[in-house]
Amino acid sequence: MSTDLDAHSSTHRLEAFSDGVFAIAITLLIIEIGVPHVDGDVTLAREIRDLWPSYFAYALSFFTIGIYWANHHSFTQMFKRTDHGFLMVNVIFLMAIAFLPFPTAVLGEYLKEGGQRQDAVTFYAFGLLLPAAGWLLVWLYARAKDLMVEGLDPGYLRFTTLQYVMSSVIYVLAALISLVAPWVALAGCTGLTFLYALPPRRPVFVDQRT
Amino acid sequence: MSTDLDAHSSTHRLEAFSDGVFAIAITLLIIEIGVPHVDGDVTLAREIRDLWPSYFAYALSFFTIGIYWANHHSFTQMFKRTDHGFLMVNVIFLMAIAFLPFPTAVLGEYLKEGGQRQDAVTFYAFGLLLPAAGWLLVWLYARAKDLMVEGLDPGYLRFTTLQYVMSSVIYVLAALISLVAPWVALAGCTGLTFLYALPPRRPVFVDQRT
Amino acid sequence: MSTDLDAHSSTHRLEAFSDGVFAIAITLLIIEIGVPHVDGDVTLAREIRDLWPSYFAYALSFFTIGIYWANHHSFTQMFKRTDHGFLMVNVIFLMAIAFLPFPTAVLGEYLKEGGQRQDAVTFYAFGLLLPAAGWLLVWLYARAKDLMVEGLDPGYLRFTTLQYVMSSVIYVLAALISLVAPWVALAGCTGLTFLYALPPRRPVFVDQRT
Amino acid sequence: MSTDLDAHSSTHRLEAFSDGVFAIAITLLIIEIGVPHVDGDVTLAREIRDLWPSYFAYALSFFTIGIYWANHHSFTQMFKRTDHGFLMVNVIFLMAIAFLPFPTAVLGEYLKEGGQRQDAVTFYAFGLLLPAAGWLLVWLYARAKDLMVEGLDPGYLRFTTLQYVMSSVIYVLAALISLVAPWVALAGCTGLTFLYALPPRRPVFVDQRT
Repeated sequence: MSTDLDAHSSTHRLEAFSDGVFAIAITLLIIEIGVPHVDGDVTLAREIRDLWPSYFAYALSFFTIGIYWANHHSFTQMFKRTDHGFLMVNVIFLMAIAFLPFPTAVLGEYLKEGGQRQDAVTFYAFGLLLPAAGWLLVWLYARAKDLMVEGLDPGYLRFTTLQYVMSSVIYVLAALISLVAPWVALAGCTGLTFLYALPPRRPVFVDQRT
Repeated sequence: MSTDLDAHSSTHRLEAFSDGVFAIAITLLIIEIGVPHVDGDVTLAREIRDLWPSYFAYALSFFTIGIYWANHHSFTQMFKRTDHGFLMVNVIFLMAIAFLPFPTAVLGEYLKEGGQRQDAVTFYAFGLLLPAAGWLLVWLYARAKDLMVEGLDPGYLRFTTLQYVMSSVIYVLAALISLVAPWVALAGCTGLTFLYALPPRRPVFVDQRT
Repeated sequence: MSTDLDAHSSTHRLEAFSDGVFAIAITLLIIEIGVPHVDGDVTLAREIRDLWPSYFAYALSFFTIGIYWANHHSFTQMFKRTDHGFLMVNVIFLMAIAFLPFPTAVLGEYLKEGGQRQDAVTFYAFGLLLPAAGWLLVWLYARAKDLMVEGLDPGYLRFTTLQYVMSSVIYVLAALISLVAPWVALAGCTGLTFLYALPPRRPVFVDQRT
Repeated sequence: MSTDLDAHSSTHRLEAFSDGVFAIAITLLIIEIGVPHVDGDVTLAREIRDLWPSYFAYALSFFTIGIYWANHHSFTQMFKRTDHGFLMVNVIFLMAIAFLPFPTAVLGEYLKEGGQRQDAVTFYAFGLLLPAAGWLLVWLYARAKDLMVEGLDPGYLRFTTLQYVMSSVIYVLAALISLVAPWVALAGCTGLTFLYALPPRRPVFVDQRT
């Protein structure tokens, strides 16, 4: 019993720490938008409007991290215990989440500039790939070490693995597409985020099969 | 019962995450005030005093977010359950809260400069409109999806909806007024914040009607 | 009973929010120390050493906020309930805590520069006065509204009020002394912080009197 | 019993505050990487790639703080109670954790530059020494004040003290080595971090001895 309690407390603590990193990373995004400097003929209103790529990048990354937060809870509910290695792969996943403000700032700064747009979008797609791959890593580790709760349907497990693999593959594709068509790649990343905003499929247990 | 527990845990987790974003956004406000550079004849004391628009903007935004925090608790107590869409509209509301440090910094930087004052105040009023509209969106979503606890008085519900709509309308008016009289608009926003600092009306239930 | 629960939950939530602001403000202090720029003959090692006023200001403010955090818990345990106004005066206190990184940065930047040292120390003493006065305000509000737990010894209450008043008075004195002797004022502020690091006197109840 | 509860609540609150500082310090690391400025012939892609020392420093410090977080929980479980001095030495430890983003930023900025590399690595090793020494200080204080839970094996206690002393000694060595061979010292620090990522030895109790 004390082991169960430890396991629970360990999962709980991991979730609290992850929620903390989600909340901080999401709120730090705004820091990357600098106050515009007005000089000469351009009005402040125009300078503020001209920052639209930064607002777009802010909103997209905010929504992305928000979705990770919303899904992380049902995700961690699938694990009945943790071990030290599991905490470490979770730290790697959080490292990818906390990195996102940087590609977001790069996208906001260079999306409007023709010469740098393509590099900025590629880097942003890469920035989205990192947490997707980190999430997959956490999942694969948990499956390999058998940390899951009992009774999850094998078909559901296979479906979920496939889903997480596909998510990483799609961001690799988005990064590749950005090399020739940055706007298309960015539209793809945006659409994917809205797709992820749909409710995740709930865990299916063996005895729930029809 | 396990669904009730899930619902409770889901509301609790939403509140903890929101409290995290409130606490971080409110504390980040100070980062936007840069250390003044002293050069030539101006003393540091004078440079520090000349930052008064930044202190004013800091205090007003800090108080505003603090009031949202204080009211959010009794707000979420009105919801008996959440769904995935509810989490998503809450993320949109938090996006608006976390955005506030940026218009605050703009207001602090340009309030004193005649040529840019009007634009800065308009943008700040817009920055206050965003969370008011986000809060309204959360409320309308919860009403449409029937997420409320049982037995709330219909009159109280109508009153509350009207109150939240009015709040957004007032900030639109403040933004419009700022186009001709920025000081009046800013005084209005400040007064409104102090008005919101008054205790919110407690939820009224059907069987409490007199 | 539900009112008791509300009261407890309200105190708990206030403490959690305050702890969040303490943790964020304390951790943000480091952001204000910028990476030095090396140019010409000066080595990086020397540039890093020359930032000693920033390290000193960092350590002093970190310790100060840490002490507020440590004392805040036994402080809030003296309140049996909260009301909306109490939340608001606590927001004002937190506004003062969250402001501290700014005078800290100013002190770190200008302590070494003879011409600006005096202004920087005065401003820093003022930055320490703000949370001391905010804490006093919270205390006076709680006493006026009778939010305290039952049975606190009147002598203890008087002693505590006097202690909090003295704390604000001392920082006013430090600010005044800094006008003529900045190093003395800064030494005083530092000594006071170490004095506060001593364990606070525990609440005394009527039936504990000897 | 109320003292037990106090003790538990005090440990819990310390852990929650520490977790907050860990989460914030870890997430702030990214703020230190500035958006590159593109000028002339260099592409954005190249500027982004040229920031590799910053990415390396980010990952190493992120992992380091993550390991402190993971180990802090089993660490605090060894203490059955806290006192005011214990909170204060913990604040000193957290001061060292929260300081790490600064040497991390210095390392990221100057690792590539031959003239400053050695100073940057020495400072970074010093930045890693600080929390190791702070952790040791917390441990020694707890042993001196007898804050530990009952029944810990004396051999385990001696082993743990030795381990924490060695950790600080190793970082002193790394700082010394960096004076002549910065790359070797940095490789040592990196290797040590991966070594710490291994599961910590679990507390051994007297009646568990074989």
